[in-house]
Amino acid sequence: MTPMMRALVFAETGQPILEERPRPQLLVATDAVIKMVKSTICGTDLHILKGDIVTCTPGRILGHEGTGVVHSVGTHVRTFKAGDRVILSGITSCMACEFCRKGLTSHCLNGGWLLGNTIDGTQAEYVRVPHADGSLHHLISGASEAAQVMCSDILPTGFECGVLSGRVKPGSSVAIIGGGPVGLSVLLTAQLYSLSSLIMITRDANRLKIAASLGATHCIAFGPNAAEEVMALTGGRGVDTVVEAAGVPGTFDLCQDIVAVGGTIANVGVHGCKVDLHLDKLWHKNIVITTSLVDTVSTDMLLKLMSSGKIKADALVTHNFSFADMLDAYSTFGASTEHKAIKVIINFQE
Amino acid sequence: MTPMMRALVFAETGQPILEERPRPQLLVATDAVIKMVKSTICGTDLHILKGDIVTCTPGRILGHEGTGVVHSVGTHVRTFKAGDRVILSGITSCMACEFCRKGLTSHCLNGGWLLGNTIDGTQAEYVRVPHADGSLHHLISGASEAAQVMCSDILPTGFECGVLSGRVKPGSSVAIIGGGPVGLSVLLTAQLYSLSSLIMITRDANRLKIAASLGATHCIAFGPNAAEEVMALTGGRGVDTVVEAAGVPGTFDLCQDIVAVGGTIANVGVHGCKVDLHLDKLWHKNIVITTSLVDTVSTDMLLKLMSSGKIKADALVTHNFSFADMLDAYSTFGASTEHKAIKVIINFQE
Amino acid sequence: MTPMMRALVFAETGQPILEERPRPQLLVATDAVIKMVKSTICGTDLHILKGDIVTCTPGRILGHEGTGVVHSVGTHVRTFKAGDRVILSGITSCMACEFCRKGLTSHCLNGGWLLGNTIDGTQAEYVRVPHADGSLHHLISGASEAAQVMCSDILPTGFECGVLSGRVKPGSSVAIIGGGPVGLSVLLTAQLYSLSSLIMITRDANRLKIAASLGATHCIAFGPNAAEEVMALTGGRGVDTVVEAAGVPGTFDLCQDIVAVGGTIANVGVHGCKVDLHLDKLWHKNIVITTSLVDTVSTDMLLKLMSSGKIKADALVTHNFSFADMLDAYSTFGASTEHKAIKVIINFQE
Amino acid sequence: MTPMMRALVFAETGQPILEERPRPQLLVATDAVIKMVKSTICGTDLHILKGDIVTCTPGRILGHEGTGVVHSVGTHVRTFKAGDRVILSGITSCMACEFCRKGLTSHCLNGGWLLGNTIDGTQAEYVRVPHADGSLHHLISGASEAAQVMCSDILPTGFECGVLSGRVKPGSSVAIIGGGPVGLSVLLTAQLYSLSSLIMITRDANRLKIAASLGATHCIAFGPNAAEEVMALTGGRGVDTVVEAAGVPGTFDLCQDIVAVGGTIANVGVHGCKVDLHLDKLWHKNIVITTSLVDTVSTDMLLKLMSSGKIKADALVTHNFSFADMLDAYSTFGASTEHKAIKVIINFQE
Repeated sequence: MTPMMRALVFAETGQPILEERPRPQLLVATDAVIKMVKSTICGTDLHILKGDIVTCTPGRILGHEGTGVVHSVGTHVRTFKAGDRVILSGITSCMACEFCRKGLTSHCLNGGWLLGNTIDGTQAEYVRVPHADGSLHHLISGASEAAQVMCSDILPTGFECGVLSGRVKPGSSVAIIGGGPVGLSVLLTAQLYSLSSLIMITRDANRLKIAASLGATHCIAFGPNAAEEVMALTGGRGVDTVVEAAGVPGTFDLCQDIVAVGGTIANVGVHGCKVDLHLDKLWHKNIVITTSLVDTVSTDMLLKLMSSGKIKADALVTHNFSFADMLDAYSTFGASTEHKAIKVIINFQE
Repeated sequence: MTPMMRALVFAETGQPILEERPRPQLLVATDAVIKMVKSTICGTDLHILKGDIVTCTPGRILGHEGTGVVHSVGTHVRTFKAGDRVILSGITSCMACEFCRKGLTSHCLNGGWLLGNTIDGTQAEYVRVPHADGSLHHLISGASEAAQVMCSDILPTGFECGVLSGRVKPGSSVAIIGGGPVGLSVLLTAQLYSLSSLIMITRDANRLKIAASLGATHCIAFGPNAAEEVMALTGGRGVDTVVEAAGVPGTFDLCQDIVAVGGTIANVGVHGCKVDLHLDKLWHKNIVITTSLVDTVSTDMLLKLMSSGKIKADALVTHNFSFADMLDAYSTFGASTEHKAIKVIINFQE
Repeated sequence: MTPMMRALVFAETGQPILEERPRPQLLVATDAVIKMVKSTICGTDLHILKGDIVTCTPGRILGHEGTGVVHSVGTHVRTFKAGDRVILSGITSCMACEFCRKGLTSHCLNGGWLLGNTIDGTQAEYVRVPHADGSLHHLISGASEAAQVMCSDILPTGFECGVLSGRVKPGSSVAIIGGGPVGLSVLLTAQLYSLSSLIMITRDANRLKIAASLGATHCIAFGPNAAEEVMALTGGRGVDTVVEAAGVPGTFDLCQDIVAVGGTIANVGVHGCKVDLHLDKLWHKNIVITTSLVDTVSTDMLLKLMSSGKIKADALVTHNFSFADMLDAYSTFGASTEHKAIKVIINFQE
Repeated sequence: MTPMMRALVFAETGQPILEERPRPQLLVATDAVIKMVKSTICGTDLHILKGDIVTCTPGRILGHEGTGVVHSVGTHVRTFKAGDRVILSGITSCMACEFCRKGLTSHCLNGGWLLGNTIDGTQAEYVRVPHADGSLHHLISGASEAAQVMCSDILPTGFECGVLSGRVKPGSSVAIIGGGPVGLSVLLTAQLYSLSSLIMITRDANRLKIAASLGATHCIAFGPNAAEEVMALTGGRGVDTVVEAAGVPGTFDLCQDIVAVGGTIANVGVHGCKVDLHLDKLWHKNIVITTSLVDTVSTDMLLKLMSSGKIKADALVTHNFSFADMLDAYSTFGASTEHKAIKVIINFQE
């Protein structure tokens, strides 16, 4: 008889439900099966429940983040063995296709964002991870396991899509629009460079307070005066790097208002519709605009720095739930402003 | 009595007229006065006549391109002396401000695009050039003088704003949308790298023919099927670099339809209105979009390669006029499709 | 009974000998076995016979270059199947270790230079290729099979270790010291950029002649006056990029004499002893010196350009032998000056 | 009658002496004359006294560092006026020659290292500064004037020649060989990136202690075991970036022993003789070696970060002298180990 497990499933109704499901098995020799220890909920999971992500259909076990213990590995998994404690990456990488070989693993022809999207994910007691060698990382010492859950997705997303795409360098002025988990991850990882200023712009007063405590030099409420405030702060120049971490037309507009000549707008937000690009004002300003899905190529580096105390990711964890209370976790995260939630950690029974 | 000269002036009526004007004099010690030998007309001049460029007001002598002989220099001009044969740069660079020192001379705090815009320009027998050391180049041997006029603006614009901003490298696939003088300059200078394909997309059949003769590997008529044709050519991948050299919303749309994952859209066109940016389709495609005004930092390199026969800029010159026939030159260039005109050279009496 | 094959073996005597050997078999699921169609001899093979390469011991089948037909593949080979026509790469890449994932496949922890070095190589009727997915390329149309043999090693070596490491860009002046197969490969691939000058310096008059026919703008005999000649050619400036493709102290000295302020010395030569670095003369010249073993990350791009006729690699093939005459091939290649040999192609019976 | 001043002069005897000299005057319109407020002594000044720097001949007023008040400016100085408080740059930049325009101001055809070398320097009550616009910086608020003296030379040298040339990035492991003022400047500015480790290797126990207090994660005494210790610390990998800040063959040897595959050796030390380069061991290790003279292109950025408290340069100042005691300052700095001296500040009477 197939052993069973509990899993958080995207129901037909658009609700998350807890169900009994068969435990996943190794399907091919490059798979691993992981017994989950910690998971978390991503803003993307809420989008899925709303039906925004057409690739993810009802019946799917959600989740693409977390840590666990390797339960079993296929015969071609080289780097991991049963019993290893690991971080699961939100991006699956075959390491062999033309995109992976260029470092564009986000567009892996055999992987990419699979977990909790086109295959079952990490909000379950067990999960099957394809291409395990390219899609897992060993847990490190020197940082809490909850902090390391942040390396599944939001920290590499913040660093790669915001900081690296944003061409941040020592001395840069940086503004981040959006104070959610990803915006705050940009805030944490932008500080891997010494900056001349680091401005957080968001609507939620609590998140502005958190941003200040995490290193923002200036905190500005999103609204009609935000652009003016940034321009005043920068002597009318604008900022070298603006990171869009909200994903709506209004915030992308603000990016265009505050980017300096020669600067960069790094889009990290997931957009559901087109936006206006004011080329009439920008055609001659020598700016760069980037879009990016995370490649998770920086994860090892981030873990190394986390291990030596340089990235304080624990600060992003505001709530803890046991997996049995997963539905409460969804309620809390779904009303994050009310609950002052950033990331909620789900703890499985070990 | 002040010596006089003939000049092409932007009249109140929006017409170009030939007028008698006082010859320009040195105003400050870093100025030079140039006796013009050759000039040309830019698409931007036509925009000025239509009233599109608000910084340029009636009464202005037009033109920002050309070659000439140095007539006189201020006491602080170090690199040029009376009698030197020179190319005038469309961008004036003080070489000293923070932008110039970063290579962003397009945004020079004391220069930038001045000639034929905010000060009198090169469609006159004499012109005063501020910051002469940073704004002139010695004429070279090994190329025609008409070819070197292309180094005032369109060749560095094509190379810097299209090819360099477009991150072209050996093996790239490149598409250029717009077959005007700048689009063709992108075509010429993209070939400073060995490319896997070089696609010209424009409406004008004559220009497609010219593009083919200048090295385009594929020529596609701009229209509703253009995107499909490019995708077919690239096995559904799209192209690594798309250069927008037309400046209208429809062509910018096409750029977004044909850029490959991980590719670049380099905007060169001058846009008069905002465009749609389809972030809902592009947010995860890891693309880069650039806007640029030319810095003319590549001009010396382009002249060096032109000197050794690597850039066939003569091919861009379709018509010659004497300065006395300047109004005919405007008529011809203004109806460029009808006259199969690319660049018209204006010859002053030597 | 194990099927047998003929193979060129590095004998205890330091001689190459033809021997009967068992045909290689698949050992692990990521292996492929290739039936060779064409092979060639590398300068490194001669070094091995002299005992210079301590990692390669007598009894080894030599050779790390060639083309063939896939005979069999392991269960985990995804990209190749029996019957495919392929190019073998001189570098074996597991694609999964930390070095491969950074693009430093030359230092692959499970691969690197294995063939004809630490495992049996390509100068045999059959060869086993580990990590086949990362170590083979599909043969392309549009170029001869002999030309494609040049993509096993010397063309990517010339491009990656000479041209890319040498920071060549449009307009560069480039000097190559050493006119052997690798030096000539640098010459061919440097021209993927439009250069202002391309200087070949070598001792052998025949190779200077070949260099001229392949695009060198200046050819200089290696000797005491070489530095002076280069300085005269460059107006006393020196060259932007010097590629060392000979591997002896005297040529490395010449590099230091002719590199321009701000320039690059790209070492490609295999050196058997230390050299002098004149830091007393160079400490303030803002130069870069690079050393590199090829990563073969450019091979696909080079094949693409070869397919469209942009790299004339056939010109490097001077001799053809059937595999039965392999010992003659070694004699000819070993006395390459006398025989005016560049690359000798070995043809197996199909 | 010419007004006179006191100056520290390089005497025929090889000794520094205090002499009465005429005050410098403006010679050309781009000059400024500065009344000195603070100066300091560089290791290079000691080299001059020993006769090591052939470009500097007896009779020269020494010094290329310091701060002061603008006394007078030529008619073509745009950015500075009498009364401005300024930092003098060790490198004079005309901003207009081909090297300056490429950012290689160290090799300015009209400047470079002039002060206290080929023209009179900053260890005097007044100094004439050529090309003042390109060679001075406004004093900033938020940092002590003594700290800003470090921006004349050693901080930009450490950052540009050590950190930038060394390709340091977040997560890098960095080793610095040499704990003098420049080595410690590398230590301070390397931390503009979050590093995984930062190793100081020097002979002087006091300087190791200072290095530890300034952020070194590991301190190793220079000696026969240093390489072994570094390799042990790095799990046998070596370090990503090694900065040579001592300038002798033994330290350059150590660099080669501890650089990782794919790493960088950034030479900052001034070498008086050639060194051994072990290409037999390094030819295939894909490393980069750089040499650099400072361009001072990072000075504004460093001042900006110093202003916001990110660079603790005061820690480099160990001694203060009044200009009248300049000879004592030389004695102290000349026996820096005994006196535990790093930088000695010379204070002029205001």
